[in-house]
Amino acid sequence: MTGNIIGERFVVVSFGESHGRCVGAVVDGCPPGIPLTEEDVQVELDRRRPGQSLVTTTRSEEDRVEILSGVFNGYTTGAPILMLVWNKDVDSRPYELLRNKPRPGHADYPAQVKYRGFNDYRGGGRFSGRITAGYVMAGAVAKKLLAKLGIEVLAYSLEIAGIRARAMTVEQIRNNRYANEVRCPDFEAAEEMKKAVLAARKQGDSVGGIVECVVLNMPVGVGEPVFSSLDSDIARAVLSIPAVKGVEFGRGFEAARLRGSENNDPYTVEDGKITTETNNSGGILGGLSTGAPLVLRVAFKPASSIAKPQKTVDITTKTPAEIIVPGRHDPTVVPRAVPVVESVVAFVLADHVLRSGLLQ
Amino acid sequence: MTGNIIGERFVVVSFGESHGRCVGAVVDGCPPGIPLTEEDVQVELDRRRPGQSLVTTTRSEEDRVEILSGVFNGYTTGAPILMLVWNKDVDSRPYELLRNKPRPGHADYPAQVKYRGFNDYRGGGRFSGRITAGYVMAGAVAKKLLAKLGIEVLAYSLEIAGIRARAMTVEQIRNNRYANEVRCPDFEAAEEMKKAVLAARKQGDSVGGIVECVVLNMPVGVGEPVFSSLDSDIARAVLSIPAVKGVEFGRGFEAARLRGSENNDPYTVEDGKITTETNNSGGILGGLSTGAPLVLRVAFKPASSIAKPQKTVDITTKTPAEIIVPGRHDPTVVPRAVPVVESVVAFVLADHVLRSGLLQ
Amino acid sequence: MTGNIIGERFVVVSFGESHGRCVGAVVDGCPPGIPLTEEDVQVELDRRRPGQSLVTTTRSEEDRVEILSGVFNGYTTGAPILMLVWNKDVDSRPYELLRNKPRPGHADYPAQVKYRGFNDYRGGGRFSGRITAGYVMAGAVAKKLLAKLGIEVLAYSLEIAGIRARAMTVEQIRNNRYANEVRCPDFEAAEEMKKAVLAARKQGDSVGGIVECVVLNMPVGVGEPVFSSLDSDIARAVLSIPAVKGVEFGRGFEAARLRGSENNDPYTVEDGKITTETNNSGGILGGLSTGAPLVLRVAFKPASSIAKPQKTVDITTKTPAEIIVPGRHDPTVVPRAVPVVESVVAFVLADHVLRSGLLQ
Amino acid sequence: MTGNIIGERFVVVSFGESHGRCVGAVVDGCPPGIPLTEEDVQVELDRRRPGQSLVTTTRSEEDRVEILSGVFNGYTTGAPILMLVWNKDVDSRPYELLRNKPRPGHADYPAQVKYRGFNDYRGGGRFSGRITAGYVMAGAVAKKLLAKLGIEVLAYSLEIAGIRARAMTVEQIRNNRYANEVRCPDFEAAEEMKKAVLAARKQGDSVGGIVECVVLNMPVGVGEPVFSSLDSDIARAVLSIPAVKGVEFGRGFEAARLRGSENNDPYTVEDGKITTETNNSGGILGGLSTGAPLVLRVAFKPASSIAKPQKTVDITTKTPAEIIVPGRHDPTVVPRAVPVVESVVAFVLADHVLRSGLLQ
Repeated sequence: MTGNIIGERFVVVSFGESHGRCVGAVVDGCPPGIPLTEEDVQVELDRRRPGQSLVTTTRSEEDRVEILSGVFNGYTTGAPILMLVWNKDVDSRPYELLRNKPRPGHADYPAQVKYRGFNDYRGGGRFSGRITAGYVMAGAVAKKLLAKLGIEVLAYSLEIAGIRARAMTVEQIRNNRYANEVRCPDFEAAEEMKKAVLAARKQGDSVGGIVECVVLNMPVGVGEPVFSSLDSDIARAVLSIPAVKGVEFGRGFEAARLRGSENNDPYTVEDGKITTETNNSGGILGGLSTGAPLVLRVAFKPASSIAKPQKTVDITTKTPAEIIVPGRHDPTVVPRAVPVVESVVAFVLADHVLRSGLLQ
Repeated sequence: MTGNIIGERFVVVSFGESHGRCVGAVVDGCPPGIPLTEEDVQVELDRRRPGQSLVTTTRSEEDRVEILSGVFNGYTTGAPILMLVWNKDVDSRPYELLRNKPRPGHADYPAQVKYRGFNDYRGGGRFSGRITAGYVMAGAVAKKLLAKLGIEVLAYSLEIAGIRARAMTVEQIRNNRYANEVRCPDFEAAEEMKKAVLAARKQGDSVGGIVECVVLNMPVGVGEPVFSSLDSDIARAVLSIPAVKGVEFGRGFEAARLRGSENNDPYTVEDGKITTETNNSGGILGGLSTGAPLVLRVAFKPASSIAKPQKTVDITTKTPAEIIVPGRHDPTVVPRAVPVVESVVAFVLADHVLRSGLLQ
Repeated sequence: MTGNIIGERFVVVSFGESHGRCVGAVVDGCPPGIPLTEEDVQVELDRRRPGQSLVTTTRSEEDRVEILSGVFNGYTTGAPILMLVWNKDVDSRPYELLRNKPRPGHADYPAQVKYRGFNDYRGGGRFSGRITAGYVMAGAVAKKLLAKLGIEVLAYSLEIAGIRARAMTVEQIRNNRYANEVRCPDFEAAEEMKKAVLAARKQGDSVGGIVECVVLNMPVGVGEPVFSSLDSDIARAVLSIPAVKGVEFGRGFEAARLRGSENNDPYTVEDGKITTETNNSGGILGGLSTGAPLVLRVAFKPASSIAKPQKTVDITTKTPAEIIVPGRHDPTVVPRAVPVVESVVAFVLADHVLRSGLLQ
Repeated sequence: MTGNIIGERFVVVSFGESHGRCVGAVVDGCPPGIPLTEEDVQVELDRRRPGQSLVTTTRSEEDRVEILSGVFNGYTTGAPILMLVWNKDVDSRPYELLRNKPRPGHADYPAQVKYRGFNDYRGGGRFSGRITAGYVMAGAVAKKLLAKLGIEVLAYSLEIAGIRARAMTVEQIRNNRYANEVRCPDFEAAEEMKKAVLAARKQGDSVGGIVECVVLNMPVGVGEPVFSSLDSDIARAVLSIPAVKGVEFGRGFEAARLRGSENNDPYTVEDGKITTETNNSGGILGGLSTGAPLVLRVAFKPASSIAKPQKTVDITTKTPAEIIVPGRHDPTVVPRAVPVVESVVAFVLADHVLRSGLLQ
């Protein structure tokens, strides 16, 4: 299979470029009978929309989703679902100047080699964060599917610019994650994060952060070891989000410093159900869901597009050059990435729920 | 595709159980004309063999690989390559006692749910680290393929039990990673690691660690964005190794705390070639190789099988229980995981090299 | 993978419904640098357009293709190519009457069972011949790719209503297949075919036929035995065309009555090239192209939609019923199927050419 | 995916060469809890065994299957099932003489080009009919799975050397298809077929024929339009059998000469169930099963290996040559192909039954 397609039974096809005519997704394999409206998708899409505050880009996009196939009388039909938003508000001229001067931290240089100069470089083309709008469309469909089993996917900003949120309850995460501009349910930390983002912005710079994602009500035994284990497939999808540099499950990298006797989650019985006293595993053992909440964290690098002058080379002359990346940019991608992480986790889970035969 | 198969053009099929008749792999898609002998595979396999020292299990396995198809007159033919080792030295009786008492930190419980009690539970069955012998066989073939392009994959123990190796040169890594029992090219750190492992063993406990993997001589532009980006596919494969809880590329989670101006790698020209001054990206931008060395780190939890008594439940009666996990076990999986990480990275790269048309 | 996606390296995603908003295709995996315009696609699309003559439906569709992604400055970029036509001229009311009375020979009944009544039944929905417009769009891209290797795909009506064309030269097929309404390069047979179609139409009935497809300049050794052999993959794609009931290669079913000594094609040398004296194999041996022209024939049943009253049942009451299928329909699908057969053969070959590394 | 792997949820991996160490298959995706013994597989395998009569090769093979993984305590575990037979009775010397003289009707020449001379040419290597032993192993597992839904797959020789069996009832087919050497339930026709085969053998020649396959108790609505429609996937699998040159469903090529009013199957109600009065469709409409018996026919060319001298070329010198194909060969492959057709149809159906969620 080619690179723009993911999934086995719930398949997502990504298409579109930053400054092309549209961005979107085709979802194939969604069972018939799932209620779905453009408004359902729009709600999710609005959460990743730029132009909402000073901490993200001031570019204003309307991004009204259109569902062009696969839905009839308000329900999915079992046919492929084509969804897209039309691109607007696009000024491609500045990118002409950059053509031969790859932006540090961007895919410009390897993309030009791979696509032999034919790639649409305007606004980063396929490498723009804008294509994640399609991920969110697919995620919106996946969430409707998961809702049939009561599965809930919740992501939020755990850390931005080194400022980390305190531990939050599920209720706090659920209710507050979209209540502020940085998508952090810990309001005190959120204030600090916001200040850090604005400080970076003021200096023409950017900051990174970590998104945590929690999945509730996972059935036991979902996943297809060994190569489509639940963590394998989530890791793959999460790394498909631009700017992601790492992913960890449960205690993650910290577990590397624990003893087995600390890290193993002892089994216990609660309300007649088998469960674990702790959840260091993040709800996954041997690539299978344990029934405990899935917990994963995703590391985002600081946004590559910064206002400061940067060193690069002219690839035609192979001489040193300096560039100032044009356009209005996010000083951090983390807040807008929150719904994107939710979406990719949702569509991987939708795929695995179908593969497990838990829904048809 | 089902869970035991990975890759598009260089495909690996994993099979076998810990206490079944054999473990191994089928590789399909390997081009014809690659020189390949059983000895080539055996060399790699010997590196993950247990029983080599006190820091790993004392179980002695011979593990002589047999190539049963796809090789003729010393060369690959283009046909599927079936490789396996026969299982020996197996005592399955202790596992009968554990059947209803899932071991904490193991897949026993979710596996029993998923496979409705029909899974081969002896020695962990498909969830045993033993199945990574098949990964190493496939990796051995992949390495021969990558060698045609000069691509070299080097992994080593970066950290065990919280003890971290100093920064090493490529030459040090290449020459010294297999020179001691903990597979750490920093011999001082290696001594400390060894002590920590033996201390844990003495206490009936286990420790975790981090494997770093470096890939040299990567061509520019390898990867298939967005969902088969190079980091996506490596992350998926790496999470298929038992006990892995996280993966990061380049600066990884640390990058989340950097500014964009610190993290972006400025371009420069060296010996007439475009390169970067730093390699914070770990050789991947936008899911494509940049030509700089790939750098990734893989977090391993402490081995789940420990000698200490542990709390569990009897799943038939749903009452509390205590178990002592039987058998001889590794106090850490990290040293033996080093060739496994090399192998899965190698077969993902072999797949992408073929997909990119760099080899046929 | 799900049902609306085909191919490995040149992937076609089909979407759209007969009376939905659009029909089309996404092509993923097309290499960068192939010249492609909407006009290139339109030319092919016009060949399957209805309303061109009395032998096909009088429904008039404009079907102007739009390329919405993956093409930049007149060349493919390597990104997914989204192409569609908007649906017009649609009257869905008659289908309401049919909802509970499945049309004989159509997919109405099994589709209603499979999709639990949620499928878009208007105009046949996904089961309409209209979705082959998307196949033709993908085929147009594939033909541009194949042209780089000089590979040419030529289909024509070999037989309609039992009237069979005489043997034609390649030149006759190339020049004359689109020169008449029945797409038969034998003009005498074409006249007879046309009369037979009109006679059936007059009687409210329909006729079937056979499309032959010839592929010139095939390289030797294309195909991936055993399950993606060249004939396997072509057969799969051809059977995805509505109304197809059989496919054969070379002498096909006739070969079942020959002796081996008659059917084997003796090798010979012509102009220094190894070739065969005859081509009973249709250019495929062991699932690999031999270098001789590919020759295959595709059987189309008579169109299911006929004006005559037909017996059916009311599926809600399970009582006998009679229906008259509404709408304007093709008395034969064969002439319009000619470019569709060319298209699916072209996209399978494009996929195999990329898999073989003959193009990148 | 590569060429030796087929299926999505019930996946078959084919491996082995005619004169290598073994032939066999891996089945991945088989649900846990299916009773399976080596004897179950052996029964099917014995049906394609050569050396049973004068109408097939006199080469005597024992072919004892071994199940090497995926089965525990007599049941499938959900893990990959590795099955193989060891090769014996092999004399490879004659093939050395043929190396530069491709046998007409065999894959020798295109294989040598594709695999650049590295393919294992002994006994035809991967292109030998012997690899269908692996198909039969996989089919045996599939049949056990289908039996859980009462689905039965019955194939038989409908025609050999132009001699066609009369129409048979399902009972006759079921009871008599394996009762004679030509696998034809019409005993009179069987006698004639046998004579024709022996006559061809005597003349150092071979004959072809047609295998018909009927599937009973198919649920309604199985298939994944458009590209994994039931007929698409069956056609693909059937064309993967060596010597197959065509496939047709229901009336097949004959339907091309019918009127719509003749070919459409009118719906009716029988015993409270919706069914059709006729079954011209062969149980498939729009790529979905209708609930009527699946009916398909597969055309086999006459065996390519004949005793008569044949014209070929020396590919090294590009000069004319004559060869006599050595070895003991089947004067017709049709009788031994009967269980092979059953097997490939069975594993495609097993895959689709799992994809439909009818079994898990």
